[in-house]
Amino acid sequence: MTQTNRQLILQSRPKGLCAPGDLQLTETPLPALTDGQALARVKYLSIDPTMRVWMAVDTYLPAVPIGEVMRAAGLAEVVESRHKDFKKGDKVVGLTGLQDYCVIDPAGKRGSFRKVPAIPFISDTAFLGVLGVTGITAYFGMMDIAKPQKGETLVVSAAAGATGSIAGQIGKIQGCRVVGIAGGPEKCKWLTDELGFDAAIDYKQADWKEKLAAATPKGVDIDYENAGGEIMHEVLQRMNLHGRVVLCGLISGYTKEDPALESFATILRKRLRVQGFIVLDYLDRFMEAATQLGKWKMFGKLKDRETIVEGLEKTPDAINMLFTGGNIGKTIVKV
Amino acid sequence: MTQTNRQLILQSRPKGLCAPGDLQLTETPLPALTDGQALARVKYLSIDPTMRVWMAVDTYLPAVPIGEVMRAAGLAEVVESRHKDFKKGDKVVGLTGLQDYCVIDPAGKRGSFRKVPAIPFISDTAFLGVLGVTGITAYFGMMDIAKPQKGETLVVSAAAGATGSIAGQIGKIQGCRVVGIAGGPEKCKWLTDELGFDAAIDYKQADWKEKLAAATPKGVDIDYENAGGEIMHEVLQRMNLHGRVVLCGLISGYTKEDPALESFATILRKRLRVQGFIVLDYLDRFMEAATQLGKWKMFGKLKDRETIVEGLEKTPDAINMLFTGGNIGKTIVKV
Repeated sequence: MTQTNRQLILQSRPKGLCAPGDLQLTETPLPALTDGQALARVKYLSIDPTMRVWMAVDTYLPAVPIGEVMRAAGLAEVVESRHKDFKKGDKVVGLTGLQDYCVIDPAGKRGSFRKVPAIPFISDTAFLGVLGVTGITAYFGMMDIAKPQKGETLVVSAAAGATGSIAGQIGKIQGCRVVGIAGGPEKCKWLTDELGFDAAIDYKQADWKEKLAAATPKGVDIDYENAGGEIMHEVLQRMNLHGRVVLCGLISGYTKEDPALESFATILRKRLRVQGFIVLDYLDRFMEAATQLGKWKMFGKLKDRETIVEGLEKTPDAINMLFTGGNIGKTIVKV
Repeated sequence: MTQTNRQLILQSRPKGLCAPGDLQLTETPLPALTDGQALARVKYLSIDPTMRVWMAVDTYLPAVPIGEVMRAAGLAEVVESRHKDFKKGDKVVGLTGLQDYCVIDPAGKRGSFRKVPAIPFISDTAFLGVLGVTGITAYFGMMDIAKPQKGETLVVSAAAGATGSIAGQIGKIQGCRVVGIAGGPEKCKWLTDELGFDAAIDYKQADWKEKLAAATPKGVDIDYENAGGEIMHEVLQRMNLHGRVVLCGLISGYTKEDPALESFATILRKRLRVQGFIVLDYLDRFMEAATQLGKWKMFGKLKDRETIVEGLEKTPDAINMLFTGGNIGKTIVKV
């Protein structure tokens, strides 16, 4: 056990991939503990795409400040404790940061730590993966948001990643046809041969779009989206009416600028629900709406206004008014 | 009553605004009715942004074929009938098309027509607007999808349009703070002074973004989106966590190309539900997920794989692997 603590300090915000020097390795003395704190030796660090976001911008968590230890989840073992909940030898998971030792504060001041239970056949590192944040992400994304139904088709992007690989398998457990999108034959083989995906599409192959279409003959009901960009765009094209998109990640946009992803990044960060809507789906309930609207109108709660254009032949001008701002309220042509 | 029928025929698909000749005025003889049909004189035509979409591309309805009468909703009066449901003098609404006369087919072969009831204080044209498709759109978009709660902040874009003006007023009826976005002082004045919106933002003013921020001091809970583009992007920035976006129109993209809108156009056309999702919202249910995942793993229903990188100092490489495709499954650094 060394008496110094190696830390990776965020020195500059990366452009594109992490460049040498963005994370600077430094050594600092081990901190002295105060009452309520514990010291833990970091054993394993969870490496997640979201870390690239934390290095760059404020999102659902503030960006890591320049000059501070880079944020990361990890698994650590308590080596000294003045904390009532932890004793020496306890294994914990939490936001350890990229360093050899982390301090566990009282009452979760720097984020909470949970004890790792000893379970037969389950490795400690599983608590960073399948039983950790990425596995739990896949679980709630699928079970709470996608709510897969037997027989539906699920497409998962970044399917060979920590979250995608679990999300796809949960889809299989729930009775879906599951198609994964991943880069390269090794990943695709793993998805189909070991994880039981019905098909895997290698997006690095020129004909991947055709293969995606062939693998989703009944369209797509659920998109578990981790990638964004061209992959997301293509999956959306394959979706069935009233499909669901679990917007879990936009990895394709984390290392490069993509203006088309900006609004999706906002939707993800703020956990917005966006519902595409066309009134045709409500045809059989038109009378219900018209009745209520009519009541509101008769009681003076709704006001309307019409912009009336005279003459069938003026219709093209009336249509253009909608886009040049010439109309107020309802635009109508009097024939 | 003339014996010819003037029609606006779609001759070419517009680029940008409708140009002269895209819709060509022609005269054809009135068709002879067969049993089951009725002939109606078109009185008023509903002019809607979606018509520009119908002129250009297949979406939720097929594009209007070149050489055919342009599709449009309208209000017409039956002048001759061999149809069991309609008699001479009946007023009807339906997809009349841009023409003087339309034929009502048996059993809604060319789209269904509904009779317009005579209601005191309600004009016929109201059945194209506040009590017609645009009003009904606003009703279901607000009541079924947005589900506004008292005290929430609603922003409506294209707020002085036929749908937006009703959606905003429904927001007021439901107890929301309602902010409309529209172009020009006349529209904005109408929204606040006559319709009772709490604020109206003129997006043609240079400082409209600051004014939007000032008008939404508690952020935005519901975006009733008709515009898309820069306006949507800005409203999304103002949204509160877990806000709802009713994606009802993308008018800004109907007359010009906007790659950033392509995926949103798909979401709208297919009525997809996109849910931004970050697992932090489920912190208090982590144990529920870990328990189920652990069971599945122990019973062999879930498989996982780890890519382990040795050495804290190798972490930047491990992070980059996520974006260059070097990892399979969960990526972990062994410190």
